[in-house]
Parts: sequence; structure tokens; C-alpha cells
Amino acid sequence: MSVDSSVASPKSAVNKGRAGELYGRLFSTRQGSLALAEPLSDEDQVVQSMEDASPTKWHLAHTTWFFEAFLLTQFDENYTLFHEDFLYCFNSYYEGKGERHPRHFRGLLTRPGAEEVRAYRAYVDEALERLFNSGNLGKDVLDVIELGINHEQQHQELLLTDILSLFASQPLKPAFKQVAISAAGKSHAPDAIAFDGGITEVGHEGHGFSYDNEGPRHEVLLRPFSLADRCVTKGEWLEFMADGGYERHEHWLADGWATVQNEGWRAPLYWEDHEDEWQQMTLSGIRPIDPAAPVAHVSYYEADAFARWAGKRLPTEFEWERASQGLDEDGRTLGSNAFRPSPAGKADGSLQQMFGDVWEWTQSHYSPYPGYRPPEGAVGEYNGKFMSGQFVLKGASCVTPDGHSRATYRNFFYPHQRWQFMGLRLAEDQ
Amino acid sequence: MSVDSSVASPKSAVNKGRAGELYGRLFSTRQGSLALAEPLSDEDQVVQSMEDASPTKWHLAHTTWFFEAFLLTQFDENYTLFHEDFLYCFNSYYEGKGERHPRHFRGLLTRPGAEEVRAYRAYVDEALERLFNSGNLGKDVLDVIELGINHEQQHQELLLTDILSLFASQPLKPAFKQVAISAAGKSHAPDAIAFDGGITEVGHEGHGFSYDNEGPRHEVLLRPFSLADRCVTKGEWLEFMADGGYERHEHWLADGWATVQNEGWRAPLYWEDHEDEWQQMTLSGIRPIDPAAPVAHVSYYEADAFARWAGKRLPTEFEWERASQGLDEDGRTLGSNAFRPSPAGKADGSLQQMFGDVWEWTQSHYSPYPGYRPPEGAVGEYNGKFMSGQFVLKGASCVTPDGHSRATYRNFFYPHQRWQFMGLRLAEDQ
Amino acid sequence: MSVDSSVASPKSAVNKGRAGELYGRLFSTRQGSLALAEPLSDEDQVVQSMEDASPTKWHLAHTTWFFEAFLLTQFDENYTLFHEDFLYCFNSYYEGKGERHPRHFRGLLTRPGAEEVRAYRAYVDEALERLFNSGNLGKDVLDVIELGINHEQQHQELLLTDILSLFASQPLKPAFKQVAISAAGKSHAPDAIAFDGGITEVGHEGHGFSYDNEGPRHEVLLRPFSLADRCVTKGEWLEFMADGGYERHEHWLADGWATVQNEGWRAPLYWEDHEDEWQQMTLSGIRPIDPAAPVAHVSYYEADAFARWAGKRLPTEFEWERASQGLDEDGRTLGSNAFRPSPAGKADGSLQQMFGDVWEWTQSHYSPYPGYRPPEGAVGEYNGKFMSGQFVLKGASCVTPDGHSRATYRNFFYPHQRWQFMGLRLAEDQ
Amino acid sequence: MSVDSSVASPKSAVNKGRAGELYGRLFSTRQGSLALAEPLSDEDQVVQSMEDASPTKWHLAHTTWFFEAFLLTQFDENYTLFHEDFLYCFNSYYEGKGERHPRHFRGLLTRPGAEEVRAYRAYVDEALERLFNSGNLGKDVLDVIELGINHEQQHQELLLTDILSLFASQPLKPAFKQVAISAAGKSHAPDAIAFDGGITEVGHEGHGFSYDNEGPRHEVLLRPFSLADRCVTKGEWLEFMADGGYERHEHWLADGWATVQNEGWRAPLYWEDHEDEWQQMTLSGIRPIDPAAPVAHVSYYEADAFARWAGKRLPTEFEWERASQGLDEDGRTLGSNAFRPSPAGKADGSLQQMFGDVWEWTQSHYSPYPGYRPPEGAVGEYNGKFMSGQFVLKGASCVTPDGHSRATYRNFFYPHQRWQFMGLRLAEDQ
Repeated sequence: MSVDSSVASPKSAVNKGRAGELYGRLFSTRQGSLALAEPLSDEDQVVQSMEDASPTKWHLAHTTWFFEAFLLTQFDENYTLFHEDFLYCFNSYYEGKGERHPRHFRGLLTRPGAEEVRAYRAYVDEALERLFNSGNLGKDVLDVIELGINHEQQHQELLLTDILSLFASQPLKPAFKQVAISAAGKSHAPDAIAFDGGITEVGHEGHGFSYDNEGPRHEVLLRPFSLADRCVTKGEWLEFMADGGYERHEHWLADGWATVQNEGWRAPLYWEDHEDEWQQMTLSGIRPIDPAAPVAHVSYYEADAFARWAGKRLPTEFEWERASQGLDEDGRTLGSNAFRPSPAGKADGSLQQMFGDVWEWTQSHYSPYPGYRPPEGAVGEYNGKFMSGQFVLKGASCVTPDGHSRATYRNFFYPHQRWQFMGLRLAEDQ
Repeated sequence: MSVDSSVASPKSAVNKGRAGELYGRLFSTRQGSLALAEPLSDEDQVVQSMEDASPTKWHLAHTTWFFEAFLLTQFDENYTLFHEDFLYCFNSYYEGKGERHPRHFRGLLTRPGAEEVRAYRAYVDEALERLFNSGNLGKDVLDVIELGINHEQQHQELLLTDILSLFASQPLKPAFKQVAISAAGKSHAPDAIAFDGGITEVGHEGHGFSYDNEGPRHEVLLRPFSLADRCVTKGEWLEFMADGGYERHEHWLADGWATVQNEGWRAPLYWEDHEDEWQQMTLSGIRPIDPAAPVAHVSYYEADAFARWAGKRLPTEFEWERASQGLDEDGRTLGSNAFRPSPAGKADGSLQQMFGDVWEWTQSHYSPYPGYRPPEGAVGEYNGKFMSGQFVLKGASCVTPDGHSRATYRNFFYPHQRWQFMGLRLAEDQ
Repeated sequence: MSVDSSVASPKSAVNKGRAGELYGRLFSTRQGSLALAEPLSDEDQVVQSMEDASPTKWHLAHTTWFFEAFLLTQFDENYTLFHEDFLYCFNSYYEGKGERHPRHFRGLLTRPGAEEVRAYRAYVDEALERLFNSGNLGKDVLDVIELGINHEQQHQELLLTDILSLFASQPLKPAFKQVAISAAGKSHAPDAIAFDGGITEVGHEGHGFSYDNEGPRHEVLLRPFSLADRCVTKGEWLEFMADGGYERHEHWLADGWATVQNEGWRAPLYWEDHEDEWQQMTLSGIRPIDPAAPVAHVSYYEADAFARWAGKRLPTEFEWERASQGLDEDGRTLGSNAFRPSPAGKADGSLQQMFGDVWEWTQSHYSPYPGYRPPEGAVGEYNGKFMSGQFVLKGASCVTPDGHSRATYRNFFYPHQRWQFMGLRLAEDQ
Repeated sequence: MSVDSSVASPKSAVNKGRAGELYGRLFSTRQGSLALAEPLSDEDQVVQSMEDASPTKWHLAHTTWFFEAFLLTQFDENYTLFHEDFLYCFNSYYEGKGERHPRHFRGLLTRPGAEEVRAYRAYVDEALERLFNSGNLGKDVLDVIELGINHEQQHQELLLTDILSLFASQPLKPAFKQVAISAAGKSHAPDAIAFDGGITEVGHEGHGFSYDNEGPRHEVLLRPFSLADRCVTKGEWLEFMADGGYERHEHWLADGWATVQNEGWRAPLYWEDHEDEWQQMTLSGIRPIDPAAPVAHVSYYEADAFARWAGKRLPTEFEWERASQGLDEDGRTLGSNAFRPSPAGKADGSLQQMFGDVWEWTQSHYSPYPGYRPPEGAVGEYNGKFMSGQFVLKGASCVTPDGHSRATYRNFFYPHQRWQFMGLRLAEDQ
């Protein structure tokens, strides 16, 4: 189930440079998606647990549709669709690509079956192989391929969080993959790492892949601040709960407090009150709470309330990005095969857990950078049209594909959502 | 896929009399359910199209649960549950059997998988076999077995109507089973068959199986009436539509008119407007409308509006029962393998299509008969607790298992429901 | 606030016979509606507490609209509408009278103001006066006048139940009218009054006013039964509650049990748990529960559950009508100025409280009588189009205008509704 | 109905300095609220048109409650509550002040009546008068008084927008106040006024009143930009509509597009399609569209879509504030008695309509300024707890009380809301 890291090569002479590199990444990513679905039965792959989530089969088909819709039908004039109706079935939200199957009915699609979707993938993979061998590999083509790889990586993460949502909703609480977890001690007390203020540059500088919403690179003005060297832990969250965190309105945003009341929230998502202790549904089934591990599956509302309770605040996206500059962008992501956030190491004066374990809520609403313009055409719907009412998360999680994130990456979700591996790190004014 | 009619025999000497007969019917019914699921993939079997419907796998498991919950755990002290959690997973609505998985989440149960449910069925079938061989076959035991057979037959019909609902909701409109349908001419003009009034007995007389809600047998007072010799056809329904049937409030009950507005009804369920003609989703996929065949998938509201438009009325359940007395109770049911309602034959002065093709709405609210008392215990929840707000349907449909219905049978649904094979036959005062 | 019983006379010579009698009843009814609104501020009269209820002002206007729409614009060619838009504003549910203001927005109509609605009433009253004096008083005219009187009486009852609903929803719990209530002892144990079975006639025989749904008169076949000599009391209801009445599913219809769960019902409507005792919101404000008085504001579901708990059942509408034949149809209705149901008298071997105190739920779904046809035109929408999913109530309540009800009267409501003065009387098979 | 500008004086010697000034403003504001309610009947004042809006009477009572809850009960130990239940009835959203009447039931409060609410106001006004005369006028007291004045001014604006909402929902479309509107020609073509980038200070500097959310004052970094010299007009909006503005997804944010579909938006709120022309419900009743006047009653989604269609963008809140620095903060607000936004004057190279006519949407999500901390206690709930999912509007509207707004003022609403006088002004990068 781990992503195959052996780099394949296009059969032609284009195996050098960007095309060669993309060729390898493309097919290892394509293979990686199938690997993630392997532990699942065809039945597991068809069901949708809630409107925010999608079935595994749909993820497998939609990421394939993406290459059909944005690449093969655009750049390969000999390409024949695998099935005409799939354009309708597996479009997600691209209005520019025509009508589509409604999101909340994705779980009704028992046909095409998982077997046929795998055939669809193989068919499109062959067409991609042919495209590489055709020599038609201009920048516009390679750009779409790179976008398609990154797009599929995002769906790999969603596939896993959606399966967790599905399995958590079932009486039998199945495990996606059993992973041995050694008992961890308590985490170290958090250290505050200080940073200067002043004008600093943020946003992607343009070398290598990035999404459109990461630019344009621009200057921002920061004030001195500090960031905790690690994420908030489940042990700390238990203290918040014990101190009436979910019962005291004064910690909460008004919309958050209303959500707590309406939804009956009393703990993070997937936590279950087993009389004498809290347990948690994970990708490895029901497990005891590990107090040293980062808390995950908390909404923005909860993260913000926790920070207020702690007398601190969430960082802005720019503070987080500034603090992460120069850090190694590798972390405990999907390739670590943990399938859960892991405890921080010993305090060492540096920021830990920045690119792995959990996505970190920032206090920044998701808004366009100065001068931002989405690209022309349907691909312009990828990011820009979601810039209202959501918040930015930074970093990466334990189920983010390796190498997918970076300092300028802007993940975004609504403040009530919590089915992703979402946690937090505290900040303070200096 | 047809129900195996070879009558098996219990291995012991109990193959005579009622026990022997039930033994054969039990296992052919059990096998029949599996046969119905055969054309379906495991994926098809897990999904729930809407709250009224249930997944195939759930039907297969629930009918098995019924024998566990009402028979094996009650009468076989050595019986060990196949899986403790299944008591929770596969209870439908029996409050007396404890907590249960919520109805609208039935489609989330990817585990147990279809394979395990088949193992569950085999395990319970073996226990049933052992029970027969144990000689513990008192009347109470045999009564539950007979109830369990009839219960499973009802779910066979639901399995098919629920699969139709699921397949109709999908863009690819799959077929459950392709059946060749020869083009039919127009149906004959309906004849009115007259019946006298007076005191007549209705309700089950007590010999042979019946549900509790069919009794006590009692006298009712009828006035002279007539019944059409056949069901209303799709051709007649097209006339109703062409005459503004769905646009003219004066035909409709107030609740029906509100439903027409809220749901945007313009035709029976599963009818699709294909520009130049109406087509219909069937168990054999999308098909042209056959004007000679009985209309199906109409709600009580629509049936009542049609009758008013036609200057007639729906029969009462007692008129229908009176008219059917003495008729052959065989009709075009599941064993005919048509999977759709078929046109009536030539007019011959007798009532046609009474026990097959479509269930027929009556104008009778579903209420208890005088002196009715549900049985003690959870089995008493089978019928009695649904006696508010529903209407009685009589007869049988093209997907009712053979021999399941009878003149006293009372099927019941809410007036807005229409995913069953529901149609109508007109009545008049004499 | 009591209805003025002085019989006025038309100024012309038509003061004899039916016209004369209707003249008196019409204007005393019209005046009675105003009298009921007198204790209310204009503010009280404009607000709608919930979709089932209507504002007082709307009742005053709609009953006036009825005379405009069905009488004056039909039979007086010189009649000029008071205000054209009122046809739209104050139509209730008559599709045949054109578009109308949506029911759930009735409470938004601050204009026309209460003052203007009173002017509207006066304007229409003058036109009615003129009509009487015109001599144009054929049977068709008088029939509509009589229907209009009865219609307005129904709305007088609704006006009071809707005001109770409004006042109960407010923190200050205002009283409509303070009525001194002397403490009552316990009620006598109920006696069962027995009745023979056999064929009996029910339905209105055609002399005097009746609604269309009370006919045609026809024969029904009854079995021997008995009726309790009084209604179920609040004291008995407290026993039901103490015995877990609202917590034990086995007493309840499935739809009722679902409603209990969804709505959190634990007592009749308007009962409030004041720590050490139950109190009740009434038209005289918050009052202690009177154990001897009939329970009111219970739904069909609750009435049915209570009867099952008590080992009895609800009567059918025909049993109730049979039992009431020959009884005095006067009872403690609106003219008694109690504004609440009162305790029964001492047991005397006769049926008490039959035409007053509370409407009594029967187990009969509201269905058409054999041969029933609604009248032509919009007036045909008065009763017939509601014949699905509702139940019949018999008798009259403490806020039914005097003389409005009779043995054949069929009141009807949905089984979940309970804001009317609805109670029950138990029946048994003999 | 115009606000009384004669400055009253406290009877003691405190009529100098801040106390004296606040004394005058307090009572003229208090009187101003009553003046606004004068054209309304008591019925008009009790009804709530939708959950976002509140009844006039509630506004009158709640602004009075504010002085009770935050001033009199805190600083006047002899103060006796007018009515204990009013603490519950008229709390808006202050969790720290205890339980409160649910927002969506505000329109049920027929009691206390309008008369009693006026008495409540007089009672509290007298207590305020006594407080002034008591000499207990420390900074903490005066701060609350000043906050209460500003609070009441905000509710004066809401009172008017809520009445417009109520009147627009009614068939009779009443006018709040008839104002003669002379026909205007077309507006001048918009001029772009350019501004430099660089570091600039924003936020309130601390002299004079401001809300907590306007601070702390801090530096921000801007890029060169330009602002249109006037607001977008209704004429320009008609062009947007004619060009398919509401039908073309490519202009819209995803949430906006979903709202357009779900709500069926085809024009600004209160616009009505009268066959041959668009008309608009206003505080003066139904009026033709004035193409030269600023468009109002558009949501953020619509404003953003319009800007994209126009090839421009909305300004940030800081650009707007920067541009407004040094401008006269007087504009066409409530005192102008126009009750509608008015056309801009001739182009003169300066920014027009900045502090009046319509609030202007900015592209800035409503977030805390660096270092922002809400005050302790319930008053801290005034602004801070709403900082998620809303957008900032700048300026003032035609119904904002005179002198209420300023350059640093941050109004905020959800992106789908449009019942306020909300419009827009376009910006561009330089």
C-alpha cells in the first residue's frame, strides 16, 4: 500500500528533464491510488458516509476523469472517451465542464463497478503513456500533467479521511490498516520559538510546482511573534474538556458556540466516551487516546476556543509561513505509514511537526493574495472560487502524500469541518 | 434466479404434514432470496437509494436475523449467535428487540460484507435444519417458521422494488434482468362487473396462514357496487396527463395537491420525458411506455385524483375482497418472471389481474378490524403499530412471490409512496 | 365577550321563517366574533404562533372574506369589493378562488390593520343587511348564509385555540380571560354504558344544517360495545405518565412513538413541569392541574396510547354517534364561559360530557361516506379534499360556539395535532 | 420623525465637558428612536419578518435593556428593574447576561405591548436622568453611556431596514414614509482615483469613541491602487443583469453560485419584475428603478460577481480606509431624510458617497486586528465573537444615524445577507 517510489521511464527519448521526472511521478502516483484502495472491498469503495465525503471508487474515477477532461480530450486529438457518461458521473465541481452528478448522490453509483473503474484507470493510463511517447510534451501539456499529479495526491488524502469517516459511522468499526502503536509518555512542555516582525515576502516564488492560490509572491508586514515548538496534544485537549471547555461560552466564537449546541459537540470528532475513558476511532480501529500525540479532527471553532482558553491565539498564515521558511519540508506524512499523528520528539529549540502529523488551523480567512487572478477556463475553478468563509491551514498531515506540501501551501476548509486530520499550534504576540 | 420449486425434505421423519410442508417452503424461500441477489454485484447490494428503501444485503441479513431473533434464540437453547452485533445491525423496527441501527444509515454498512452475510445465512440455515431434525416442532415453533417464510417473501418483493429505486437513481440506468417484451396492442375498454350489497363476511377465516391484521373475520355491510374488470392502463394515464391531470387542483386531495407542487410530480415515478415520448425505468432498464399495461408506481394521491377525473372512485378494501371471493388467487406474480405488469387479456366478463401485475390502492385507511389485538411480544409489532395514516392495497404485484397473497391480504403504504408496483382499478356505486 | 343572544330582525318583511331566523343568527355570530377579540390588543391579533394557527385578525377578516367570496360577489350584482387585494390576503385554502397569501405568512400582515379589518367587517355587514332587505333570499342564498354562519363559528373556536397557542409561547404567559375555578375533588370512577350491535343508521338525515361530509345518511353494522360515561381525566393522565406512559414503546403506534421521540413529548401540550408539580397554560393563564377535569390537548397518538395502556380502545365514530343518539346536544360549550373543560358530575348511569368540554378522538380515519360527492365549485373544497390521513373527533369543546355541533358532526385533525381542546373517552367490546 | 438636535442639559452642574455632551446626545438619541417608530402602528411594531430581522418594539425595548443591563444595574445600587422578565425577553445575544428569548421567536412577543415598552423606555430614561444628576459620572459610567448611545444608533438603522423587510413581505406594500424623488438623469462615468502604496496606519487612534474592533491602530502594507469616485449604480447593475450576470457561473464564488441557484436570485433584493420594467420596494413603497442611484441590497456574493464581470475587484478594508483618510465624514445619512441612496454629483476628481447612501462591501473577511483583545465581561461579546465567516463593509448608509460612522468603522455581515443598504465601489491595482 505504500507509494511505489521506483521511477518508471517513458519509453521514448523524453526521459530527460521535466518530462522524465513527471513521467515517473505520474505513474507512481497513479499506482499509489490503487494501492490505497487495496485493503478495501468493492463494497467499502462505493459508499458515501456524508455529503462532505466521497466514495473511494469515486476518487479513483474522478482523478482519472481529470486527465481525460483537462489533458487527453484537449491535447490528444485521437483520444476516444472510455465512456461518454463518465464525463457526467465523475466531474466534481467544474461548472465549465458541464452538468455533473450531484455531490450528495455520489454514493449511489454502484455502476460503473469498481472493476470497471479500474479498467477506466488502466485505459487512461495507457493513453497517458501514449501521450508521453507521442512527443507532444509542450509546457502546457506538462503543466496539466503536473497539476493532475498534485490533484490526485490531494484525493489520496481525501480517500483516507473519507474512509475513516465511513468506517467510524459503522457499528462494526472496521480498521483500514492495523498499525502497532507503542505507548508514548507525556509530551514535553511546549516551547515558544520567537520571530522578528518586519516586512517579509510570502507566497510562491515561481520555481517548481505550486497552486495558483499560492501567488503572487508579495510582501507582508508582520509584528514580532512566537510559535509553539509543537502541536497541541490530546492530553492538553483533555484538560480543556475537564475545565468545561465545551460548556463555557466565553471561549467561543458565536458561530462556534451555536455549532457546539446544535451538534452536541463534547469532544473532537471520532472520540467516544467509553465510560471510564475516552477512546478514538482511527484508521486502525478503536484505540485509546494517546495524550502525547497531537489532537486531530477539531474544527476551527474548537481550535480557536482552545487557544482563547489557553490565553494564546492561532497564528496567521503569514506568521506560520515566515516561521517555516528554511525548514526541511519533509515530515511524518503518508510514506511514514503511521496513519495517525505521532508525538513530538524531545524539545530541541526548533519547530517540530511542521510538515506532517496534522494540518494546522491558522486564524487567516482564505482570501486572494494581492494581484491574484485565477487561470482562464475550467481549471481556473480549482481554487479561486472558494475564497469566502473558509480558513487557511498550513503544513501537512499524516496522510498527505510525501512531497505534496510546502511552506507556501494553502489548504482551506470551513470553520465547522473536522473530518480531516486538523489540529493546531499556538502563537503569541512577542 | 427463479425460485427453486423442488421441495426439499427434512432429514428426519418429520417430513409429513405441516412440518414437512414448511420445511420445503422454508428452504426454497431461503434459496429464492439468494437467487434474486445473484444478478447483483456486491456493490449493488450495499447501497440504499432513499430512506424508504433498504440495501439488498440488508434484506438478506434482516430476514436471517428474523429467524435468529424470533425462533433460534427463543426455542433452541444451544443456539449461539453468529455475531452479537448483528442483533443491532439487522433489526428493522422491533422496539421489543432492543436498540437498532438507524434506518437511514442502512446503506453505510459496508461491513459485514456481502460474503459474510451469505455465510450468516448459511449458518442460520444450518441451525434451522438442525431445529427441524431436533423434533422440537410444536405449534409455536412452526407458527414462527411460517411467519418467517412469509416475512422473507415480503422482503423479496422489497428487494426488487428497492433495486429498481437504486438503479433508477443512477446515470447509467442499469437493468436488473433483461426480459423481452413483445409490443402489445391497445387494451380492451374496461367492463364494469356488478356486485350485490348486503352483509358479507370479510377477513381471514383462520385456516392456513394469515397475518394478524387480516382478522378477526367479521361481517360488514356493503352497498351494490361494480368493479372494472381490469386495472387502469398506462394509455389511460397518458390521457389523464394530456387532460392536465397534474395541473388541475380540482381532482386532488389537499395533501396530494401539496405533494404534487412540492415534489414537482408530472407523471408516475420512473417515467422520463424523452422529448418526443415518455419512457420508463424498469427492472429491464429504460423502456418505452406500453399503453396496454397497467400503470404502476402511482401514489394513493394520484390514484384518487385519476379516479375523480374519470368520474369514478377507488373501491373500499371490503368491496375488493368481496369481489375477489371465489377467484383463483394465482396471477402474474414473481414466478412469471415478467418483472413488470402485463396487459390484461381480452374481455371475458370476469375480473382480470386481481392477484398479480400491480397492487391496487383502495380508498380504505389501514385500520384495525373489530376485536383486533396484536399478539404479545415483539412479534406484535409486525403489523398493528402501523395503523395510522396509511391506506390498504389489495391483490399482488408482478414481483410478489408466488402464493404469498390472498383475498384477505392487507398490504399498506402511505398515500405519498409510490416506489412499489402500485396501481389501481376503478369502482362505482351501482 | 359572550355571544349576544338577542335576536335582531331584518328591516323588511322577511323576518319570518328561515330567513328571519338566519338573520338573527348571522348578526349575533358576526357580533360574537368581535366580542371574542375584545380582550385582545391589536398586537395580540396580528401574530401567528405557528403554521397550524392563524392570527385573530386573520380570522376576523377571513370569515368576512367568506361572505364576500361566496355570497356577495355571487348574488349581489351591485356589490363593490371593500378592497381588491383582500381576496388574495384572506383566502384560506380555496384553490377555486384563485391565488392566496401563503398560510405560514399570515402573521406578517400588519396591514390592513385591526382597525381597517373592523371597518371591513362593518362594510360587509352592511352589505349583508342590504341583501336581507333586498328580498333576494332564495334557497341558494340562504344556504350560503347558513354555511357562512357555521364557518364563522368554527373560526371562533380556532380563534381561541390559536390565542392560547400564542399566549403559551410567550415568556409573560398572559391570560385571555381570568375565570375563577373552584377546586374540584376527584372524579368518580368511570362507568361503562353498554350498547347493542346491529345495523344502525348514521349520518345526517337532511333536516336542518349539516356539512356535506356528514352525509349521505347510511346504514352501518355495529357490534355490541360500551362507552365510558365520562372523558378521561387529568388525574388518570398523571397515572399514565407515572407508569412510564411516554417512555414505553409498547403502547404506541409507530408514527406516534417517532413523534414522541422527535418532539420530546412527556405530557400533554401546555403542561409545564414546575419542579414539584405539573401546571398548565390555559386561557386564564398558568394554573395547577385539576385532576377531575378532562384531559385536553392530547394528540391522537397519545389518546390511542393511553387507551392501550388502559386495556381499552377508542370508539369508532359510528359507535360514538350511535351512543349519542337521543342525547341532549347541549353541553358545556362556549356560552358556559368556562374556557376550559370541566369535571363530570356524579355518576348517574348516563353519558356525560358528550357535547362539550373536549372534542373526543375516535379511531376512525376521516373518510367519505358511501355515495359522498362534494358540491360543485369552490365550496366543494370545504371538507372533501381533506379526506386522507386525518382522524374524526366527535362532540364539542368548551370553546365550541353553542349550538354549533350535533351527533353527526365530524371534526377532523391529523394524529399529531394537539393544540385544539382534544381529549378522549374509552370504549370496549361487549 | 427627524432626530431632535436640540441639546438638552442635565439639571445639575455636570453640564460641562464630556458628561454634558453625552447627556445631550443620549436623550436626543433616545428620543430619536421613538420618533422613528412614530409612523408605525403598534401592529407594525410587533411582527418579525424573518430571523435576521427584529420587530420595532423589540429594538425599542432591547436598546433600553442595554442601559439596564450594562449601566443601571451595575452603577446605580438603588435601581429597581422595571420588570424582571424583561432581562430575559430583551437580551439579544449576550451569553454573559444569562438565558434569553430565542431570536426567531422575537415576533411572538405581543406582551409587553408597545404601550408598556414605551413606559419601560420612560422609566429607564428617568433613571438615566437621575444617574446624571447623581454626580456618579466616572469614566467607566460615561464609557457605558457612550457605548449605549452608539448601540442605540445601530439599532435605529436596523429598525428601518427591518421595517423595509417587513413591509416588502406584505401584499399591500405599505410605505414607511413617502418622500418625493425627482427624476435623475444618468450618472457620470466613474473616475478612478489613484493612491500610493506603502506602509500606512489604520485603525482607531484612541481619541473619541470607537468600537473595540476598530483597534489596535497598526501599520499595514498597501500596494498602489485606485478607487472609483462613486458607487456602482442601478443602471450599471441592469447592464450586468442584461449580460447574464445571474446566469453565468464564471463570475461567481462557489458559495455565491449555490446561493443564486438555491434562492433563485435574479436581481437585488426588493426588486420586482413588473413585466415591462423593474421596480423596487423602498421605504416609500414601490418605486421605479432610478438608474443613477447606487445599487443597494446586494450581497457580498453579488458585489464580488459584479466586480469580476466588470474586470475590476472590491477594495480591501484597508485600501478603503486609506482612501477615506482626510475626507469629510459627513454624508447623506439618516438626517438627510431621503430614506434611500441618492445619485452622485458631477465628477469632481474626488471620492463621493463615501460616508452615506450605501454601506460598501470590501473583500476583507472580518478578522481581529493584531493585538486585539475584547474587553472583559459580557460587553466583550459586542463585536469579537463574530469574527468568522463575515465580511467588512465601510462607510455609512442613507439610514445610518448622523455622526455614527467614521473612517475606521467596521460594519460586518455574512456574504449572503442583503437586507441592509449594502452596495459597492470598484477598485483596481495600479
